[in-house]
Amino acid sequence: MSDAPEVKATSNGISPPSFHLPLPDRPEIITANIQKLTELTPNPRHRFIFKALVKHLHQFVNETSLTTDEWMAAIDFLTRTGQKCTPLRQETILLSDVLGVSALVDALNNPVAGGATENSVLGPFYTEDAADVDFGESIASEGKGDYMYVEGRILTTNGLPIPNAIIETWETDDHGFYDTQYADRSHPDCRGRLRSDDDGKFGYRAVVPVAYPIPGDGPVGELLLLLGRHNMRPNHLHMMVEAPGFHKLVTAFYPEGCDYLRSDCVFGVKKSLVVNLKDVVDDEETRKRGFPQGGSFKLLQYDIVLLTEDQSATIRAGVEERYTITQDHKSNKS
Amino acid sequence: MSDAPEVKATSNGISPPSFHLPLPDRPEIITANIQKLTELTPNPRHRFIFKALVKHLHQFVNETSLTTDEWMAAIDFLTRTGQKCTPLRQETILLSDVLGVSALVDALNNPVAGGATENSVLGPFYTEDAADVDFGESIASEGKGDYMYVEGRILTTNGLPIPNAIIETWETDDHGFYDTQYADRSHPDCRGRLRSDDDGKFGYRAVVPVAYPIPGDGPVGELLLLLGRHNMRPNHLHMMVEAPGFHKLVTAFYPEGCDYLRSDCVFGVKKSLVVNLKDVVDDEETRKRGFPQGGSFKLLQYDIVLLTEDQSATIRAGVEERYTITQDHKSNKS
Repeated sequence: MSDAPEVKATSNGISPPSFHLPLPDRPEIITANIQKLTELTPNPRHRFIFKALVKHLHQFVNETSLTTDEWMAAIDFLTRTGQKCTPLRQETILLSDVLGVSALVDALNNPVAGGATENSVLGPFYTEDAADVDFGESIASEGKGDYMYVEGRILTTNGLPIPNAIIETWETDDHGFYDTQYADRSHPDCRGRLRSDDDGKFGYRAVVPVAYPIPGDGPVGELLLLLGRHNMRPNHLHMMVEAPGFHKLVTAFYPEGCDYLRSDCVFGVKKSLVVNLKDVVDDEETRKRGFPQGGSFKLLQYDIVLLTEDQSATIRAGVEERYTITQDHKSNKS
Repeated sequence: MSDAPEVKATSNGISPPSFHLPLPDRPEIITANIQKLTELTPNPRHRFIFKALVKHLHQFVNETSLTTDEWMAAIDFLTRTGQKCTPLRQETILLSDVLGVSALVDALNNPVAGGATENSVLGPFYTEDAADVDFGESIASEGKGDYMYVEGRILTTNGLPIPNAIIETWETDDHGFYDTQYADRSHPDCRGRLRSDDDGKFGYRAVVPVAYPIPGDGPVGELLLLLGRHNMRPNHLHMMVEAPGFHKLVTAFYPEGCDYLRSDCVFGVKKSLVVNLKDVVDDEETRKRGFPQGGSFKLLQYDIVLLTEDQSATIRAGVEERYTITQDHKSNKS
């Protein structure tokens, strides 16, 4: 006799289904059986999602005649992806990013509307400690890169100015690094917080951001090599804009001309967020703008259009409607 | 100036594609763009697999109009699944199991052929330390469960006996636990290693195995609750059979009558592996078989048919042929 605890292995409390599934004697029966089991899912939205998930997973395996070795490689890859995640690094999101899934989910959930500025993902480099910057001041230390001046207005969809909007902005230096990527970071740099003036205008000095790679030392880095794809994001300037009564906008602007603009490894570029930087080759004008070395600078001009909370709610309701595949999905979506 | 290292963020060495992708202004462009990029995958088999993967992932997101919150929940779930894995526990395989993917991959890669006994997954409970057991001896300590006698022959597909085949067999006790699940395991129990005799016959005493749950304390356990599915495997007896010149068989037998037989939570049951246990209610016969308490026992009779290595290779070649979607897949599959 064993010294085993006198307990029995017990189930999670859910009974076998009342219907009888056929015993599988060919692959199709397995797929049919799990779909019949998935009908048991109590929440209709979950049921709908998992039926679609199982359908596509099984179709994928069937269409590719996936081998056991390939399946094991996929298991190993997904396991390592999860295990690469830390509180500071999210490799699973990165996987979703490079497969275009994050961009697709974003596009479906944030449709273009009413001439408002499109959103872009927040990304992992936003911090809350950016310094306050007055109109025309610089967000970057001298020497951090080629001069760039950013200006525009914060507007309603009717073209009216939104004064006193809070604008957070951040970018890489000319090495392609955010300040947080330096081990010896002593203070925030290449980031700042400013406000629009009474006419909705804003303006600040910055540097021309530089293209940079996503982390290449994990499973996702391996995957891009396997796929023959570079791991670069085109250079961009982040902006986050908030004003009372308006829907918070998180976006980024992508200067035309970057080698990686049309093959962003995470599919984050949107056509409406691509900007032309104007070359201002005028020493006097450069100094007037506050750039101490003079010479020339690039000018980024963009008017940012915010939706009111009401406009945003209306658009979101339209998105919600797409989920309403049947009545019961609507009533039970969680 | 920062004390930043004087290095630039650099790419993985792969250049942007020579063709120009359109800048996305609607969701369909994102999907089209990643598929064009996936064309760059050097290995044709990988290219084929990833085009299918991206197609189904994006169709899934589109068909479900997946919300940002749902997508984040999926990211979190996959991350936790990877992080639950240890050298002793593979939660990612368990996820694949409960979604029917493991069973489907197995069915596609191991087609039924020539009357040979079908395979079943090895599972996590096989150990190499099983004791040798002579014909008619017991693999289970007395008191480990209801008596079961297992007998049959090891045969070729032509019905000829295969003598001296090595048979490894293992099962749960009547608590639904394998010996390895007891913290105080001092010796192997409910498992043994035996050989077929000159007529290909084998026979041994065992106990009737008991249904048991898969681990419920991880993400997969949560998922089954969400799906309204129990987490039980029907009771079964594992066997692994090896003989020189024959393809190694890993299989399991599932007694008819278990509540969970037709809803195995990992879809491991195959119709041909379901067995009827014969009730032998005959005290004398029970004692003659070597069961010390007498009374009655269950009889499991099954003739196991092995493929020769040549037969197995021919079948595997047929499976391989399915992968040959185009000439170049065949020449480059890795």
